[in-house]
Amino acid sequence: MDIYEALANRRTIRFYEQRSVPRESLAKMIDAARVTSCASNLQRLRYVVAMDKSLVDAIFKHTAWAGLLSGKRTPVLGVTSPAAFIAILGKAPLSDHLYADAGAAIQSMQLSAWGMGLGCCWIGSVDKKAVEPMLPMPEGMELMYVLAVGYPAEKPCGEDVSAGSPLAYYLDSNGGLRVPKLERDAVATFV
Amino acid sequence: MDIYEALANRRTIRFYEQRSVPRESLAKMIDAARVTSCASNLQRLRYVVAMDKSLVDAIFKHTAWAGLLSGKRTPVLGVTSPAAFIAILGKAPLSDHLYADAGAAIQSMQLSAWGMGLGCCWIGSVDKKAVEPMLPMPEGMELMYVLAVGYPAEKPCGEDVSAGSPLAYYLDSNGGLRVPKLERDAVATFV
Repeated sequence: MDIYEALANRRTIRFYEQRSVPRESLAKMIDAARVTSCASNLQRLRYVVAMDKSLVDAIFKHTAWAGLLSGKRTPVLGVTSPAAFIAILGKAPLSDHLYADAGAAIQSMQLSAWGMGLGCCWIGSVDKKAVEPMLPMPEGMELMYVLAVGYPAEKPCGEDVSAGSPLAYYLDSNGGLRVPKLERDAVATFV
Repeated sequence: MDIYEALANRRTIRFYEQRSVPRESLAKMIDAARVTSCASNLQRLRYVVAMDKSLVDAIFKHTAWAGLLSGKRTPVLGVTSPAAFIAILGKAPLSDHLYADAGAAIQSMQLSAWGMGLGCCWIGSVDKKAVEPMLPMPEGMELMYVLAVGYPAEKPCGEDVSAGSPLAYYLDSNGGLRVPKLERDAVATFV
């Protein structure tokens, strides 16, 4: 897939087909993450790739989805739930730059996934106290985020909006997810 | 360019050819940033794209490069310095999730740039107090990072290394930059 097609069309996916994701696809996502830019090349991020169905389902129960839609875009376990999770771990103490590293690595993984026909949801609302004990956590690492992965069962649509427009994503009359994104002139000044 | 080619081969570039970058190329980078995943779709990042040579050179004087190489990979103004900077601004107060948003947007911009034959250096060592007054800062925004942009005048090389290896980038006997990256098994556990 062309890089600009991936960059422009990738959207967060919250409803998934109920089929597994090949291990090689998840490995390809990790390869994208591990060569991503990071502060001073310190590489302080680690990844737990959860593929085992019982583990994935257990993690799923401790995640919250699409806060702006009060439950209307929360996947249903075994119906629209993700096939895998990638847990992103950071070396404690977590710092600003490490959060930036995590964001960059996650974006690489999301683009890599999109190129394989996979969709992701980057989740900050995860109960870390509940999920950390489920994972093989290397010493001194903390859970930062989880990334849900699976084959998309929805087609969210981006739409460019002008400065001052509402930014909350919403469901259209057909139940499709619409995601307002500020147009170029609303976010950038060229000098 | 294929997305996997960009993801695998993109490297940080610190030495640049002395020619300008078309405004359309910088605009394309902004388009990649503005549709990147962000927390709750809040879109709290703004960008100042500095193309004017006197402004770019002024910003350059307040940046520090490749801390691990004690000056050996610091570009020389007018010889290997960048053609443009994109300043990444975040809505105050800056938070963990906003740093993660910035990292994701920066990675999108870097991949977009790479696809056009451009190179970038993501810089955290910028004197914010000195640079903010040079920029048209929207109210309530703070400078987080600057991204240097230009046509590459170096070809850094990644190399996979095993767990426990030194991670500091270094110059080889030909003055080429080598960047160790932990191999997949050193960063990821599949369960």
